[in-house]
Amino acid sequence: MTKKIGIIGASGYTGAECARLIATHPDMEIAALAANSKAGMRMDQVYPHLRHMDLPDLVPWEEIDLAALDLVFCALPHKTSQEVIAQLPTDLKIVDLSADFRLRDPADYKKWYGNDHAAPALQAEAVYGLTEFYRDQIKDARLVAGTGCNAATGQYMLRPLIAAGVIDLDEIILDLKVGASGAGRSAKELLLTAEMTENATPYAVGGTHRHLGEFDQEFSLAAGRPVEIQFTPHLIPASRGILATAYVQGEAGAIHYALAQQYMNEPFVHVLHLGEVPSMKEVRASNMCHIGVVADRRTGRTIVVGTLDNLAKGSSGQAVQNANLMLGLNETTGLMMAPVYP
Amino acid sequence: MTKKIGIIGASGYTGAECARLIATHPDMEIAALAANSKAGMRMDQVYPHLRHMDLPDLVPWEEIDLAALDLVFCALPHKTSQEVIAQLPTDLKIVDLSADFRLRDPADYKKWYGNDHAAPALQAEAVYGLTEFYRDQIKDARLVAGTGCNAATGQYMLRPLIAAGVIDLDEIILDLKVGASGAGRSAKELLLTAEMTENATPYAVGGTHRHLGEFDQEFSLAAGRPVEIQFTPHLIPASRGILATAYVQGEAGAIHYALAQQYMNEPFVHVLHLGEVPSMKEVRASNMCHIGVVADRRTGRTIVVGTLDNLAKGSSGQAVQNANLMLGLNETTGLMMAPVYP
Amino acid sequence: MTKKIGIIGASGYTGAECARLIATHPDMEIAALAANSKAGMRMDQVYPHLRHMDLPDLVPWEEIDLAALDLVFCALPHKTSQEVIAQLPTDLKIVDLSADFRLRDPADYKKWYGNDHAAPALQAEAVYGLTEFYRDQIKDARLVAGTGCNAATGQYMLRPLIAAGVIDLDEIILDLKVGASGAGRSAKELLLTAEMTENATPYAVGGTHRHLGEFDQEFSLAAGRPVEIQFTPHLIPASRGILATAYVQGEAGAIHYALAQQYMNEPFVHVLHLGEVPSMKEVRASNMCHIGVVADRRTGRTIVVGTLDNLAKGSSGQAVQNANLMLGLNETTGLMMAPVYP
Amino acid sequence: MTKKIGIIGASGYTGAECARLIATHPDMEIAALAANSKAGMRMDQVYPHLRHMDLPDLVPWEEIDLAALDLVFCALPHKTSQEVIAQLPTDLKIVDLSADFRLRDPADYKKWYGNDHAAPALQAEAVYGLTEFYRDQIKDARLVAGTGCNAATGQYMLRPLIAAGVIDLDEIILDLKVGASGAGRSAKELLLTAEMTENATPYAVGGTHRHLGEFDQEFSLAAGRPVEIQFTPHLIPASRGILATAYVQGEAGAIHYALAQQYMNEPFVHVLHLGEVPSMKEVRASNMCHIGVVADRRTGRTIVVGTLDNLAKGSSGQAVQNANLMLGLNETTGLMMAPVYP
Repeated sequence: MTKKIGIIGASGYTGAECARLIATHPDMEIAALAANSKAGMRMDQVYPHLRHMDLPDLVPWEEIDLAALDLVFCALPHKTSQEVIAQLPTDLKIVDLSADFRLRDPADYKKWYGNDHAAPALQAEAVYGLTEFYRDQIKDARLVAGTGCNAATGQYMLRPLIAAGVIDLDEIILDLKVGASGAGRSAKELLLTAEMTENATPYAVGGTHRHLGEFDQEFSLAAGRPVEIQFTPHLIPASRGILATAYVQGEAGAIHYALAQQYMNEPFVHVLHLGEVPSMKEVRASNMCHIGVVADRRTGRTIVVGTLDNLAKGSSGQAVQNANLMLGLNETTGLMMAPVYP
Repeated sequence: MTKKIGIIGASGYTGAECARLIATHPDMEIAALAANSKAGMRMDQVYPHLRHMDLPDLVPWEEIDLAALDLVFCALPHKTSQEVIAQLPTDLKIVDLSADFRLRDPADYKKWYGNDHAAPALQAEAVYGLTEFYRDQIKDARLVAGTGCNAATGQYMLRPLIAAGVIDLDEIILDLKVGASGAGRSAKELLLTAEMTENATPYAVGGTHRHLGEFDQEFSLAAGRPVEIQFTPHLIPASRGILATAYVQGEAGAIHYALAQQYMNEPFVHVLHLGEVPSMKEVRASNMCHIGVVADRRTGRTIVVGTLDNLAKGSSGQAVQNANLMLGLNETTGLMMAPVYP
Repeated sequence: MTKKIGIIGASGYTGAECARLIATHPDMEIAALAANSKAGMRMDQVYPHLRHMDLPDLVPWEEIDLAALDLVFCALPHKTSQEVIAQLPTDLKIVDLSADFRLRDPADYKKWYGNDHAAPALQAEAVYGLTEFYRDQIKDARLVAGTGCNAATGQYMLRPLIAAGVIDLDEIILDLKVGASGAGRSAKELLLTAEMTENATPYAVGGTHRHLGEFDQEFSLAAGRPVEIQFTPHLIPASRGILATAYVQGEAGAIHYALAQQYMNEPFVHVLHLGEVPSMKEVRASNMCHIGVVADRRTGRTIVVGTLDNLAKGSSGQAVQNANLMLGLNETTGLMMAPVYP
Repeated sequence: MTKKIGIIGASGYTGAECARLIATHPDMEIAALAANSKAGMRMDQVYPHLRHMDLPDLVPWEEIDLAALDLVFCALPHKTSQEVIAQLPTDLKIVDLSADFRLRDPADYKKWYGNDHAAPALQAEAVYGLTEFYRDQIKDARLVAGTGCNAATGQYMLRPLIAAGVIDLDEIILDLKVGASGAGRSAKELLLTAEMTENATPYAVGGTHRHLGEFDQEFSLAAGRPVEIQFTPHLIPASRGILATAYVQGEAGAIHYALAQQYMNEPFVHVLHLGEVPSMKEVRASNMCHIGVVADRRTGRTIVVGTLDNLAKGSSGQAVQNANLMLGLNETTGLMMAPVYP
């Protein structure tokens, strides 16, 4: 039976991307769209690309008939998200796409986001949404915390290497390139076309990006000891997409083997032949993640390159994947579309 | 029962786009891929974005078991296409994406393409593939000629106006903006990134673009008298997409009404409210076409803006739509994906 | 002797472009930079590309020692500009880059900009800054009104044709493509990178763009009768640049001759051989304007294509050109840099 | 007295960039342009952006009156360059922009470029053209070898750190992002707009990029022991520009100090305040190089970010800077133009 889905925060890019994915999902239909600042508008006024869909108008989230829904995607900004979710029925299935429930320790949350968490009990309940590593818990979860898009990329590349013990845990460097939509639809000078064309801009340099909270938490867990990586994101002139290059110390063959083993049966994560690397556009608008491994000319050094679409596999695609599990559907339902190229 | 599909010319952009669309088509599967210059390669070596699909390797078209196929998409360059199709079984269903069978009159073909047509009998047999206007003939056709991508855009905008007699037939101007993929994957200096970023380049100025052959043929047919429009395409810094702006003489209300009437039941062509215009990206990677109408400040002048994705609705999406009809499937099957935005 | 220059509104793109041009101007130096919202900052904090210049810090304009200046570039938003200029000394030479003094008739100003003009006497005094057509008056002017960037482009293309009587005055259509910087550095959703990549967006469709006020005023003046053109601008994915395509009724040879005669001795406006058209990038970051003329296949129809850099020849380059004249310098001083290509 | 300049290989991007820079150089004039494949064409047919310059037509290099020239820029592909330069008069001053004379050891040349060097005596004579480090030798040189554009970027960032001993020589990682023009004007599929928009592509991964020959040679020389860095370039969707991110082990304060000391009197290399990083576009089309230093959250780890324009400071700007020295002119003559932003 078709599942009734609500999207709270439907006027942002990740909310709209959930709607795009559900458009061809055979077992989901959108029953409610909420966006408090744009309440009263038709969705196609905010996102004309969804014009052909028969979508409900945008309403304040308080006006949604939550009891009629099977699951809600919550695509609000962090801090707002925890405040809203705390008011939702405690039996409503929720996939949260914000940063609010990613970190397990309230102290970590405060360290990276600055404020005390308003819903620590929910934080404890939430399951971390990196599907390929938390699949079993997600199936039974009520509240799943979608990962950061950068955090997802780095974890797909590095987590199996850390767990397998094939790289030096103290010498992990991740240089990441990301398109503008990672920063959302808010109008900021840095994101203007006139600023970004023909440009490349490092930001949060020196280890201040909030997704490091996720890396630290998850990598330390995987390693059984504290792991801190070096991480530098760069804005590049693109709308979508993340391509990350990791510099690690370990033998390329062992690294490639660890990744290939980890993902050999995964439908969405693909490891290329040893010596090949992906490019960012080859996963565009899809739920795929491609990973390549190349040995450096210097023995014992290896380069790992990973790519995914920040709005799809990095957030809304992952959210649908998790929702499929939470609703008892096949995990890949509605998500096997091919990337858009060129 | 799933239809077995072959793609001849699978190494070009329109061939690859056919494969992308079939990836999620419930009633088609790819049984053969041909690309003579790249025969022997795996499809994911030529197009890594199709890595997750279980595709046959590329072979010379002569090696395909044509008897096992229900339909072939032929995505070869013009002139090559007529030579190959002339050698295919005469009972094989074919959607040709080249320019070879678009013009009915061999003299017109020679005028616009320079060479004598090598398969005039097939030219006579072919049905012009603008689905919304040739639907009934396409259903029964064996050979369908996909339209030019620019030609499709202009016809969706103007054909109903010409047929309805609501515009001056001698005063039609079409200014079109198109991304680079319209010119295919061939390496030309004009198409280099270093040439195209921050650029806009008019080409075929003065009425020399070959798609004018289609405009002349179809508009004259619709009008019942010769119609020659003015048409200027411009390359803009984008991969995909066409946005065209038409300047016509006629009353905006009547023009809007004629378009709205024409497309009111069409699943893929959407007419916006009078006074609104589409932007190019809102149909990206989809089979949608959006059209807007605005009255100029000068009485009796109207601006019509239309947009579609040159690789999807402008060629491969149209091809799948026509193939659906030819195979007795529902016309929209596999084509209701939402556009990718942003 | 080096002229002392002030820039009021130095934190916007046109203000920064004035600074860039003065960097290599042998007879000008920047003595003061004002930007009230960013007062107290160093210019290289707002525009790191000017780091190597020895520039004064940003101050509120009220703190500038105006008596020490030979000329001021006023690069404020319209409405603010008239309020500030009304408070400046009446013997200070000013090139205003806003829209505030472009229209001679206060009623026209109100019609296009919505508010009553706060300084009608200054409006009467101001000389319209299209250098090639108002050179003699600019030399003696105290206050020069820089033109709109779109308005400059269209006038370079069409003004000589209107004056020469070689085109039908009632059948002029101008389709214009422009990069994002034409809208300034203000953070608007429409201008975000995620919105603009792979996009093309018509705006102010139907004759509502404010630069039509300038077109109407200047073309009617040139024709000796009212002239109203049709004008549609389109945002394309670029930072800088304008390329406009005009559709006119007249004989291409006569049109080309009129343009060639007009500009034969002009250092900045170049007419290509008949049958050739320019591309947008070939004038990038320069004070050049290139114009091409092509006959349409239909007798009596002609396409004219013109291009310039909206921030250079379309505003700040024009401003420096005018300032040169007002200060008794050679008109081309500091402006003969070659365009940046690719 | 104005110096007479020839450009051999004027149809490539670096040749055209030399012409652009000379356009406003007060002490140089272009006396000859050679491009054998396009001989007989006017330069503005090949590069319309140079239309306003009064340039000689393109001729085969053999037809140039070399005796009338003060200096030649040789902008040919590697291998061709050594063959041509070997035929030029032995007293002609030459700045070579190819890779042919960058490596001092013929064995290194063969290792990285595959062929035996055809002019080993000239190789021995050539001075490496990284101006800020070889200034004294360049002044007296007859033949200067322009550096690789990537090689220049990395050396400006790292060379002072290696020389000062403030970083671990065995732990240097350089992740570089570069626009398409670095690969020249040759039409390759990889460089097509349809391939590069919305993309990021690592290449020469694992230590196979030829500029590593320069890094190895120069860094080992600076260190007094062999130094091999890890280097991965990435194509990003831009025409021009390089931004590189270096991950080094050393104390940020010491690193910043070493850079600040090295470049404190340099007109073209600017070190930002500790903790700040540059973006790629802030040096566009200029001869500037900006470098920033940030301490990582992990003690003893530092990130260094450097940027320059590959066609200007990375090749043709550097070439003019070197030519200034070779001709007895002031080193900065004609090169103090501000970057183009936005």
